[in-house]
Amino acid sequence: MNTYNAPLRDMRFVLHEVFDAPALWARLPALEERVDADTANAILEEAAKVTGQLIAPLNRSGDEEGARWHAGTVTTPSGFKEAYATYIEGGWVGLSGNPDHDGMGMPKMLAVQVEEMLYAANTSFALYSTLSSGACLAIDAHASADLRATYLPPMYAGRWAGSMCLTEPHAGTDLGLLRTRAEPQAGGGYRISGSKIFITGGEQDLTENIIHLVLAKLPDAAPGAKGISLFLVPKVLVNADGSLGARNALSCGAIEHKMGIKASATCVMNFDGATGYLIGEANKGMAAMFTMMNYERLSIGIQGIGCAEGSYQAAIRYARERLQSRAPGGAVAIDKAADPIIVHPDVRRMLLGMKALTEGGRAFACYVGQQLDLARFAEDPGERQRSGALAALLTPVAKAFFTDTGLESCVNGQQVFGGHGYIREWGQEQYVRDVRIAQIYEGTNGIQALDLLGRKVVADGGAALRLFCAEALAFADGCNLPYSRELVAALDRLLAVSDWLMDSARTNPNELGAASVEYLHLFGYVAYAYMWARMAAVASTRRNEDPVFHDAKLATAAFYFQRLLPRTLGLEASIRAGSATLFGLAEDQF
Amino acid sequence: MNTYNAPLRDMRFVLHEVFDAPALWARLPALEERVDADTANAILEEAAKVTGQLIAPLNRSGDEEGARWHAGTVTTPSGFKEAYATYIEGGWVGLSGNPDHDGMGMPKMLAVQVEEMLYAANTSFALYSTLSSGACLAIDAHASADLRATYLPPMYAGRWAGSMCLTEPHAGTDLGLLRTRAEPQAGGGYRISGSKIFITGGEQDLTENIIHLVLAKLPDAAPGAKGISLFLVPKVLVNADGSLGARNALSCGAIEHKMGIKASATCVMNFDGATGYLIGEANKGMAAMFTMMNYERLSIGIQGIGCAEGSYQAAIRYARERLQSRAPGGAVAIDKAADPIIVHPDVRRMLLGMKALTEGGRAFACYVGQQLDLARFAEDPGERQRSGALAALLTPVAKAFFTDTGLESCVNGQQVFGGHGYIREWGQEQYVRDVRIAQIYEGTNGIQALDLLGRKVVADGGAALRLFCAEALAFADGCNLPYSRELVAALDRLLAVSDWLMDSARTNPNELGAASVEYLHLFGYVAYAYMWARMAAVASTRRNEDPVFHDAKLATAAFYFQRLLPRTLGLEASIRAGSATLFGLAEDQF
Repeated sequence: MNTYNAPLRDMRFVLHEVFDAPALWARLPALEERVDADTANAILEEAAKVTGQLIAPLNRSGDEEGARWHAGTVTTPSGFKEAYATYIEGGWVGLSGNPDHDGMGMPKMLAVQVEEMLYAANTSFALYSTLSSGACLAIDAHASADLRATYLPPMYAGRWAGSMCLTEPHAGTDLGLLRTRAEPQAGGGYRISGSKIFITGGEQDLTENIIHLVLAKLPDAAPGAKGISLFLVPKVLVNADGSLGARNALSCGAIEHKMGIKASATCVMNFDGATGYLIGEANKGMAAMFTMMNYERLSIGIQGIGCAEGSYQAAIRYARERLQSRAPGGAVAIDKAADPIIVHPDVRRMLLGMKALTEGGRAFACYVGQQLDLARFAEDPGERQRSGALAALLTPVAKAFFTDTGLESCVNGQQVFGGHGYIREWGQEQYVRDVRIAQIYEGTNGIQALDLLGRKVVADGGAALRLFCAEALAFADGCNLPYSRELVAALDRLLAVSDWLMDSARTNPNELGAASVEYLHLFGYVAYAYMWARMAAVASTRRNEDPVFHDAKLATAAFYFQRLLPRTLGLEASIRAGSATLFGLAEDQF
Repeated sequence: MNTYNAPLRDMRFVLHEVFDAPALWARLPALEERVDADTANAILEEAAKVTGQLIAPLNRSGDEEGARWHAGTVTTPSGFKEAYATYIEGGWVGLSGNPDHDGMGMPKMLAVQVEEMLYAANTSFALYSTLSSGACLAIDAHASADLRATYLPPMYAGRWAGSMCLTEPHAGTDLGLLRTRAEPQAGGGYRISGSKIFITGGEQDLTENIIHLVLAKLPDAAPGAKGISLFLVPKVLVNADGSLGARNALSCGAIEHKMGIKASATCVMNFDGATGYLIGEANKGMAAMFTMMNYERLSIGIQGIGCAEGSYQAAIRYARERLQSRAPGGAVAIDKAADPIIVHPDVRRMLLGMKALTEGGRAFACYVGQQLDLARFAEDPGERQRSGALAALLTPVAKAFFTDTGLESCVNGQQVFGGHGYIREWGQEQYVRDVRIAQIYEGTNGIQALDLLGRKVVADGGAALRLFCAEALAFADGCNLPYSRELVAALDRLLAVSDWLMDSARTNPNELGAASVEYLHLFGYVAYAYMWARMAAVASTRRNEDPVFHDAKLATAAFYFQRLLPRTLGLEASIRAGSATLFGLAEDQF
């Protein structure tokens, strides 16, 4: 049932036509030799094969079978081990990794497309390697040269995996409360003791080793988040020559029974005086971990797009085949007992909603990827700084908006199937269950919204926000498309609401939290309006090249501006109503 | 984990204070002897005990265990059989049944509260009896005196259950396509042959007999929906003296594996020349079935409220206990390491959203129940006709809006739990899975929206709509509360959009389907505004009686008007954008 075909035409459209990535790569010395249009297309095609033929076929069976735990070991579902072995042969885990340590050094603009394919094909499978990529990023950015040389090559190769050990039973959002301890060891290193929960891929049977990045507190640490350090704690200790030594003193105590992503092992990890190595400076663990978390946040956002795309593909197939009732204007398939349900306006509304949100998200993910690439590879420090600020601003939007709209899309994709959407064998309900976690983990979407409004908008007085809006306004200014006016109006509204919020937050500390989620959604819809205006501009310029495709893009843009962007009206009114009504009830009046 | 306590205070508020049901009952001869305030309160309290102590404890275990099928028999999860036996002793299945056949004859205004408790406690369990109640309604309204006398008493007693056999693999929304056949039998009755799917409780081990209401076609039937008849087909044939005879020629071929309501058996039913009895007139089966379906639609709507209430109760408990971070304005629980998360504005936003939608829905369900009671029991034919028209208008709104907002509430209730919301043992993810089906079955919410806009608003030129709005406007006129203005504005907008739609539908048959779902949501928010204005009016008049409760009601009303009602702005703009953008793509351009 779960036939997934990567949307290669659309990915090329975004990468080449909308953002002209090859031209960008050609002007960045770090990339010009490494990647061009042909290389990128070849990588996308190969990724489409691997995800469509190797990984997607394990999605339903993986859900039914689930990961299993027995006496500290985890068994992944049938076929995962073999598929993983084949998968890592392609070097995919190190796709955007540092070439100095055997990574492929590919730009993020390209990597986001491959990530989308992975999540769409099989979210549980994807998680076993996406956390490795994130862990590598933190190690590469903050660990010593020795640690980097020892750990990065086998991790990029996929022979070793990475995990991210933050949460404890009483400390999730509020990591300052964590209790895991790190004691300096005689002879170097630290002894790590404590218990972590919700550790994705904390234990599995796919790789020879698992490298845990663990947040813990040193004996003399300050209370709260300022006293947290980051440690590298391997499952199997590594000898000086890089070979594997003894098992470290850590174990997987259990795995969780979850709503979805059942083939992904979500582990309780116990560290019983395990040997670990400090990454970066003592007490600066949160900053080091954020390197990984920002990467993961974009990635988890892309899970929302991937699941939505998978659900969309199935819904389109079903809507074309399922015969039920006649079109409102009279029979279309007169030779059949009923019309395919794609003739019905409300079915089209659901499908177009999915399409407009998924394609808008795909473009936005690529745009954020572009900022990350520029922040890393641009020669001009000013350009690096500007792009870094944009990436920081837009990462929480990407994570939360991709996944909130991802749930909406998957629910619609299930609804198109009617009763069959609720039945497991059809596969649509799995997307709903699988995508749901993406709104929760890597910082709940409520936390993303606070990060956006508090740390990214208000903290710099709206500077990064204005940078983003100025770019979009400049674009709208230069383009003669019908959506320029709508885009300018939307941007002006976003700026005005932001100013109003910054102002009201000065006198009432609750205003930001009261507005944050709706503000993030408002931001998301406006950002997608910018993406759709850019896509429409390109589609209208190039429509002679591929009219069926480019006309569909223009029609979807029209749907977006007329039927989805108006949601901002309600969001704005609710934001401007302020925080007062949230505090009209005492705790016991709820 | 799943401690459910029926919200008795709130139910009494709605029943007695907002709608003054006892005064209504006192003026209706059919009810005045049967029910008063004390009886109603006693019934609610007893129902609260049964649902909280007997049924709710089986909710989680029922989900884990599921219904099981073996060689044509279905086994319900452990404890269901015993609990069902105890449950029916209370006569609950016949609560609103016809007293001439041993029903209790209680008003619907009261029955909706009991239904909410059942769904909140255990949706799967509830379904085994709510379908019986609906089947009884169709039998009582359309079957012959003999059939009524034979079947109703044991069904009201819960010893026999009912099922509703409509859907076939190729015929769901479009029942005109169905293939099940009914051949007249020598010696009376019919032989029914065909296969039905998605039959809730089609087979189970709780009752001695199951009475299937089956849609089928007679040999000479017209094609399409006009050639459908309704038949009563018992699992076990019934002798002339009412005792059970031989097994009928029907069987359960399989049960579905579903996203949720796993303890409810969703059956494939095969009728192999089974003996059946015509209900009502030949070829008038759809009309007879709609008697049942309208009842079921309100009931399934209430599933949305029940699941949301269950999720809300758990979310409130968690939000009071879970300590994480500090309030934006500074520490509240200074003796603890962090504040309970209920101090955070965004957590309050989620909880208040659930509260405002659930309580708005509870009031609206009672209001629709009132119309059903008046349509059945009022002495004045004009009043019966008026209430019948309102009930017909509002039923699709109740079904779809309760369940769409029910999903939103359950998703928020899960989100409040953070990562724990995704773990099965905490119970919050089950509400999401269980409530999701209510948007699909008994006519998808898209079908409800078409029913509302096409058959209930446009077909009578907006007459029933204006009846409803006029009542609400008259109320707003007479009340000096701050929300009168907002309510009037919302009603005016609903009326204007309705007029615009009726107008545009004249020239374009796609306009109704293009607007229908958003129109239903707009209608729902405006209807809830009427409910909240009524609740606020009562709460403000009575606040001296129970200030903690009534002030909470006023505060929740304020939240509703300021933070939720603005959603209508975006809905209206999207509706007014029309159908054009839905048809910009050819089928192969999706």
